[in-house]
Amino acid sequence: MPRYEILSKESMATLDRGWRRIVTEIGVEFIQPEALDVFRKAGQKIDGQSVKLDPEWVLEQVRKAPSSFRLQARNPERSVTVGGDNMVFASVYGPPFVREGFERREATMHDFERFSKLSQAFPELDSAGGTICEPNDVPLDSRHLDMVYALQTCTDKPYMGSVTSGPNAADTIAMTEILFGGREAIDSDPAVISLVNVNSPLRWDDRMTAALFEYAQAGQALILTPFLLMGAMSPVSIPATLAQQIAEALAGISLVQSIRPGAPVVFGSFLSNTDMQSGSPSFGTPESALGLFCTGQIARHFNLPFRSGGGLTSSQTCDAQAAYEALMTMLPTFLAGTNYVMHSAGWLESGLVSCYEKFIVDIEILRMLQYEFQPLEITDEDLAFDAHVEVGAGGHFLGAAHTLERFRTCFYRPLLSSTENYERWNRLGGRDAAMRAGEIWKETLDAYEAPPLDDGIREQLGEYVSRRRTELGD
Amino acid sequence: MPRYEILSKESMATLDRGWRRIVTEIGVEFIQPEALDVFRKAGQKIDGQSVKLDPEWVLEQVRKAPSSFRLQARNPERSVTVGGDNMVFASVYGPPFVREGFERREATMHDFERFSKLSQAFPELDSAGGTICEPNDVPLDSRHLDMVYALQTCTDKPYMGSVTSGPNAADTIAMTEILFGGREAIDSDPAVISLVNVNSPLRWDDRMTAALFEYAQAGQALILTPFLLMGAMSPVSIPATLAQQIAEALAGISLVQSIRPGAPVVFGSFLSNTDMQSGSPSFGTPESALGLFCTGQIARHFNLPFRSGGGLTSSQTCDAQAAYEALMTMLPTFLAGTNYVMHSAGWLESGLVSCYEKFIVDIEILRMLQYEFQPLEITDEDLAFDAHVEVGAGGHFLGAAHTLERFRTCFYRPLLSSTENYERWNRLGGRDAAMRAGEIWKETLDAYEAPPLDDGIREQLGEYVSRRRTELGD
Repeated sequence: MPRYEILSKESMATLDRGWRRIVTEIGVEFIQPEALDVFRKAGQKIDGQSVKLDPEWVLEQVRKAPSSFRLQARNPERSVTVGGDNMVFASVYGPPFVREGFERREATMHDFERFSKLSQAFPELDSAGGTICEPNDVPLDSRHLDMVYALQTCTDKPYMGSVTSGPNAADTIAMTEILFGGREAIDSDPAVISLVNVNSPLRWDDRMTAALFEYAQAGQALILTPFLLMGAMSPVSIPATLAQQIAEALAGISLVQSIRPGAPVVFGSFLSNTDMQSGSPSFGTPESALGLFCTGQIARHFNLPFRSGGGLTSSQTCDAQAAYEALMTMLPTFLAGTNYVMHSAGWLESGLVSCYEKFIVDIEILRMLQYEFQPLEITDEDLAFDAHVEVGAGGHFLGAAHTLERFRTCFYRPLLSSTENYERWNRLGGRDAAMRAGEIWKETLDAYEAPPLDDGIREQLGEYVSRRRTELGD
Repeated sequence: MPRYEILSKESMATLDRGWRRIVTEIGVEFIQPEALDVFRKAGQKIDGQSVKLDPEWVLEQVRKAPSSFRLQARNPERSVTVGGDNMVFASVYGPPFVREGFERREATMHDFERFSKLSQAFPELDSAGGTICEPNDVPLDSRHLDMVYALQTCTDKPYMGSVTSGPNAADTIAMTEILFGGREAIDSDPAVISLVNVNSPLRWDDRMTAALFEYAQAGQALILTPFLLMGAMSPVSIPATLAQQIAEALAGISLVQSIRPGAPVVFGSFLSNTDMQSGSPSFGTPESALGLFCTGQIARHFNLPFRSGGGLTSSQTCDAQAAYEALMTMLPTFLAGTNYVMHSAGWLESGLVSCYEKFIVDIEILRMLQYEFQPLEITDEDLAFDAHVEVGAGGHFLGAAHTLERFRTCFYRPLLSSTENYERWNRLGGRDAAMRAGEIWKETLDAYEAPPLDDGIREQLGEYVSRRRTELGD
């Protein structure tokens, strides 16, 4: 299916002037000394922690990045390509809370495992993602080990790594080596992809940048994402925000390419706006949809894969608002041709909550759009002229031969949506979509089967986690 | 904003072969004898009630139709243009039931008036539409008079006429003449627009076609709509359905143009699919979205304005399903550049229910999309470079001069959506979107003010209604 593009050549040229001016005249801050060293060695101007970048040098680095790359899963059938016409879908990332029916509470490791299993169970998702929720019942220092272990064992899909520090990234890489059989097995094609956010505006912090170094040196994939809520982290102007997004993302990409030329990177976008009345972040907005259309076009302009969210919403519960805001970001995500889609399932309450029911609503939305965005074939045979001859004027097609041959597969079959007539629906309890979603995720978990994993590898992973947990004092 | 088009030239040529073959080899049935006379006089082959049409003759008639036209409102500021880049939005049309909170019941004339007032109150709607609900508490024979009177007095926007019979259409035209000051005032620019559906497949019934004659002769606008639920009224194939849709719509348009060359017409589309498991109609589906993209392109191919729904859904209540299905049709409606959008607000339960809460959800969706589909300007000034200079790296933009000058108007401001933090939302009652919508429509009705109307005209309309009601025996 074609992309939906709204930027004219002139607009793109204006944005190009914009980011060039930002990196040249204002510069980008890097708190981590090693990052400043890299830029210094490359001849960029350093003033304290601020780097004034030469746009031509930046573009030279950006051109070293692959326009698409393969991301390995331990089950080779689940490996994916990031870039080009491909779209990869990962679950929600980051929430400290979960919502289950009417209960909202702190997330636990049990929730993390359950969401990992749900992500494994639905073929609409290519990855469970990474921090599918923040398990607050296990110690902070070694939590990353538990999360990576759960992603590696509950799923056989690609996963995302820890970015909370350099050593935590190194642990992720070490565990990935164990799972895949050594450094060589993951050196040419990455087997973990990790999210490094910019501390926008125009600042890269030390801990995440340290993680960036680990992954870049190991040739593992990085998503470099300006974190932009317009009005707070960027100006209240979509064009100004897009120019800032380019400046921040390309600065990070040029750092990665200076560390390891050709390392797989993704142009990240997390762009929405602040509710200027409450100061709260606002998701599923018209502004974020416009940002998505433009970002896709911009990333293709630089020949880079790009990432965005997903099923975003500010809603506090799994209601009509949650659904229209989720689709208001997800449909533009498809139209923009997003290559790596985070937060594809489960996001609620501006990203503070991983919600089980919303997870199912999002899966239904994903399924519909994955069906919708298959190219439509129109051949003379598809015109089914014989069916028209058979039925004629004023008849119906329910019993036509053409229909009977195809009725099982001819249309999208919903997972969650109901077309039951009112009397039947009411008789069966009058359950709304959120209630039905609650039944679906529980049934899915009941039917979950763990993907097979070699006992020796599982043991090695367990030993690594135990040893490092002890070293970390937990 | 650009349109989203997915049909290749080859696909369009295939569809072109498709409709030509249908009208030539199978033909289209017209139950009304006067219609057959028109076709006979024009040299088309008649076989019983079936008309075998010459595609070149059809296209000759279609070319007589205007590519866009002005539709008058009694308040000239609310007149609209149907066609070209314009989009006109009308409320839900047809449901026999209403839903208000948790109550579902037969619609009444009181409901009809309340929905008319809500349609008047929201600037996102250009028209209340016509049968915004079917008022089952007033006599069937004279019901059309009450409905037209309510639309004429509760709103000053364009409205839709009765199509249930020729005489009912004549009543609508007579009342429109009273409102606008005589036949001449509505002769060159239509002041009422009416929906004539095809009894698909390939049959035009007698009552609606009789209404078609009245409106066509008076030069009033007609929307000619194949009514296509794939699997029941058309084959289980999108291409076959599109070919049938063209055949049916163009047959009706050629009839109108033969009655009065140049009469304003709209290429109608009501295209979704049957749930092949339950046999129920299914709305907000991927198939209907694909149909929308294609239909826009097809109507432009014939240089005609086109119509579709709206905020369609099969959901029984104002829940997540209702919202994602509504947006799954409304966003493609914008991308397809639909000129006349029926069912823009209030549709629930596959069109059986006009729902007050869903009306508000749909208004929010409309507002968001109307905001989103404004062309995005990107000038050097929009880059707000000074804001970046002021804030620098690591700061925030909440207090920047650029923000303070714009914070009131820089972003979309929601009507219904909430960004409240959880604690505050919960403290205020934890109301979901449907509950908040229930408060909004009641407040809106409380604040409603009737648009001014000349007393003499109001009296004449009342007299006409009384006289005709008596004549009709009610």
